[in-house]
Amino acid sequence: MQPRLLAHLMGRLVFLLGLCMLIPLAFAAATGDPTARAFGVSAASVIAVGFAMGRIPLDGELEARTAIAVVTLGWAAAGVVGALPFWLSGIFPHWTDALFESVSGFTTTGATVMANIAAQPRALLLWRSLLQWLGGMGIIVLFVSVFPRLGIGSVQLFRAEVPGPAPEKLLPRVAESGQLLWVIYLALTAAAAALLLLTGLDWFDAVNHALTAVATGGYSTRDTSVAAFANPMAEWVLVLFMFLGGTNFVLQYRLFRLGDWRAVAADREFWTYTGLLLAASVFIMADLHLKTGAGIWESLRLGVFHAVSVMTTAGFTTASYDLWPPLSQAVLFVLMWVGGSAGSTSGGPKVIRLLVLVKHGIKELNRLLHSRAVQVLRIGDRPVSERVFAAVAGFVFLYLTVWFASVLVLAGLGLDLVTAASAAIASLGTIGPGFGAIGPGHTYAALPPPAKLYLAFLMIVGRLEVLIVLVLFHPAFWEWRLRRRV
Amino acid sequence: MQPRLLAHLMGRLVFLLGLCMLIPLAFAAATGDPTARAFGVSAASVIAVGFAMGRIPLDGELEARTAIAVVTLGWAAAGVVGALPFWLSGIFPHWTDALFESVSGFTTTGATVMANIAAQPRALLLWRSLLQWLGGMGIIVLFVSVFPRLGIGSVQLFRAEVPGPAPEKLLPRVAESGQLLWVIYLALTAAAAALLLLTGLDWFDAVNHALTAVATGGYSTRDTSVAAFANPMAEWVLVLFMFLGGTNFVLQYRLFRLGDWRAVAADREFWTYTGLLLAASVFIMADLHLKTGAGIWESLRLGVFHAVSVMTTAGFTTASYDLWPPLSQAVLFVLMWVGGSAGSTSGGPKVIRLLVLVKHGIKELNRLLHSRAVQVLRIGDRPVSERVFAAVAGFVFLYLTVWFASVLVLAGLGLDLVTAASAAIASLGTIGPGFGAIGPGHTYAALPPPAKLYLAFLMIVGRLEVLIVLVLFHPAFWEWRLRRRV
Repeated sequence: MQPRLLAHLMGRLVFLLGLCMLIPLAFAAATGDPTARAFGVSAASVIAVGFAMGRIPLDGELEARTAIAVVTLGWAAAGVVGALPFWLSGIFPHWTDALFESVSGFTTTGATVMANIAAQPRALLLWRSLLQWLGGMGIIVLFVSVFPRLGIGSVQLFRAEVPGPAPEKLLPRVAESGQLLWVIYLALTAAAAALLLLTGLDWFDAVNHALTAVATGGYSTRDTSVAAFANPMAEWVLVLFMFLGGTNFVLQYRLFRLGDWRAVAADREFWTYTGLLLAASVFIMADLHLKTGAGIWESLRLGVFHAVSVMTTAGFTTASYDLWPPLSQAVLFVLMWVGGSAGSTSGGPKVIRLLVLVKHGIKELNRLLHSRAVQVLRIGDRPVSERVFAAVAGFVFLYLTVWFASVLVLAGLGLDLVTAASAAIASLGTIGPGFGAIGPGHTYAALPPPAKLYLAFLMIVGRLEVLIVLVLFHPAFWEWRLRRRV
Repeated sequence: MQPRLLAHLMGRLVFLLGLCMLIPLAFAAATGDPTARAFGVSAASVIAVGFAMGRIPLDGELEARTAIAVVTLGWAAAGVVGALPFWLSGIFPHWTDALFESVSGFTTTGATVMANIAAQPRALLLWRSLLQWLGGMGIIVLFVSVFPRLGIGSVQLFRAEVPGPAPEKLLPRVAESGQLLWVIYLALTAAAAALLLLTGLDWFDAVNHALTAVATGGYSTRDTSVAAFANPMAEWVLVLFMFLGGTNFVLQYRLFRLGDWRAVAADREFWTYTGLLLAASVFIMADLHLKTGAGIWESLRLGVFHAVSVMTTAGFTTASYDLWPPLSQAVLFVLMWVGGSAGSTSGGPKVIRLLVLVKHGIKELNRLLHSRAVQVLRIGDRPVSERVFAAVAGFVFLYLTVWFASVLVLAGLGLDLVTAASAAIASLGTIGPGFGAIGPGHTYAALPPPAKLYLAFLMIVGRLEVLIVLVLFHPAFWEWRLRRRV
């Protein structure tokens, strides 16, 4: 391990987050918000600590283990930094609530422990949305983009955080790739806010929901989430931007900046993602229309909104889907296990991984019939290497193992089986709402503090796609003699 | 496809099952059971049809596709044949109930739609237990053992049915291997019956529970399953024989016939299986003792009994575990996804497959730290080939896919989400009881007939380990030009 380098990078990261805190501070100061002092104290102390740590001199080039430590500790530190204003403003009864809310924000989970959301200080609500927006694209990606000339193995940091197997490099320099992604991200967010304003939301609601929709986060400014607006047009706008948030940003760069329609047409993951959303929406629409007597257009709107919200792992709601007929619930349950596209802001296992496994399953079925034939795994016209397949299978298995273990842990902490199982997938997949005691319209506030801490940990495990956090529990990680470079 | 060969083999199989029907017929005749006529008519017609079909001359050697068709259609036909006495005796309101009960028997699932079990004709109860016993070792294995000189690719039939990846060949001739396994199976069953008699069960209960424990089936002669006897000694005897039923029979052959203790000592799957059962039992014991105030010995007995019953996929119950504290429920829920050992009578994914995936997961974690190191997957000192790993990963993924699809189907048929999810795993894993409306103390009787039919299909899919049934839905299977030999 390289303790100085680690401290130096953590310091820079913390410093950057302190600067981000100036936004809600300015907002609080301008609007006379009661949390101005909390933000002032937080920003000052965070910037001071970050600046001091950032002065620690570097000790060598970034090693693999240090990169892993920077990313995991960086996310944990971000959670603590983000929690400061919540804690100092005194709106939560327990520090675990402040930490939960902050981590749920950064990881774009969107599970909340906040009661009477609409009545809370607005600067805090803005900070909450901003956390999701920062976490959506990735705080480490942000970091690498802002400090491009660190020259200390930023490729490792970037790879460790961007979701999905084998993220494509846009440009030779990682920092420039990161900047490009942030430009698209900013543009989408601005477009979402503008369209939401046009549908009649006030500017505060529009900005907050734009931030959390593109980040597929799901924090809302209202207790009943998007249902509070009773505004179908706003719901369709959110559907569009959640959908884009769950789409590969490299693909969006190709389309929006290079006009490369062919890349979109040839992208199997994109079409599978779109097809699954359409199928899920149609199933829910038919089920709601036939079983509850809801009108066909209302059923369509409810179906599309919740299919997109759950599959992109945003987690906005406009209805109590836990009271829907069983098929609609089952469709949402299945989508919770899929997630959006690789290289997007969404969580979950991601469509591309499921595609690889589906293709592999078909290959195994073929083998029963043609036992001697040599078969190559392909997605579209691209062959999938043994290495990528092994990584995908490893990821999915570890993801499931973490989920099963989490069900045991949460049940051990007293959650009933349905709540434990759904809280575990809703956190690991960074979705937010689940079933049982944490269904739509409920918050996580009633859970015992240890369960909140565990779920916050699980959100980081899910956001960082499992392996990079699990490796911290591997004895080899802690062997100080080991000095390999990646 | 080879229609004559298929018909010929199906005929012989049906003939054999007709002969098995003579056992309950004789019992019914001797005890003046009201179902004697039902058994007489069933046996006569089944034997006649089987004999006639068995006269159809063979057309060539067994091809891969025909072997698959024989096994899958053979299990479907067995389900129909087994259902005849239930249907003719008129105890069920609907033919789907008779079929469900028969398939649930043959597949050793043990889910029942029978009400007032203790009051039903005893010959029917014996038939029900006998179905599980026949299905436990495998009706095709039985078939290959009884007709050893068919000389028509019995290896394929054997491989298609014996659970677990790469079953070990005991002897050069498949038929002899099959016969050896049946000898052990018979001996275990006789020992179980004798010990159950010693614990005070009457001979009818002892024989029935011996048949269904060694088969890890779980049909009981009582409505409240094993709880009805209030006999702790009988419960421990059942624990022992469920445990042995869930242990690799090849390993038991080595131990009991060859005295090969080293084979047992070196068997990683056996020790993982045992270790998981011990850990699960201790967790449940501690949870029940601390949360419900039950005595420590009673908690231990409940813990061991249900851990073994669920993990071996037998499905006997002595308590309403759905009213237990959450951790105990969660432990049973996790065990439902494991199953027993390869080459045993149990269902589920099997311990050896999970071992392969755990090792693979650790290998992927290692790769994060040592990206250039070449690593070999090993279980104990045996390397696991790429081919076996690919098959294991394919199996587990298809198993999960079938489960997710089944949750959608069952929810679409009106089951609530918890019941749909648990009925799907309880059937696919051939366990029997689940959670929700099909928890312990409930039967599957209240489900709609289409759900019963679907679950019966799912039990066969699970019993035959998924691939061999799924391949029937593969277009290539139906290409008649295809004529490859395995």
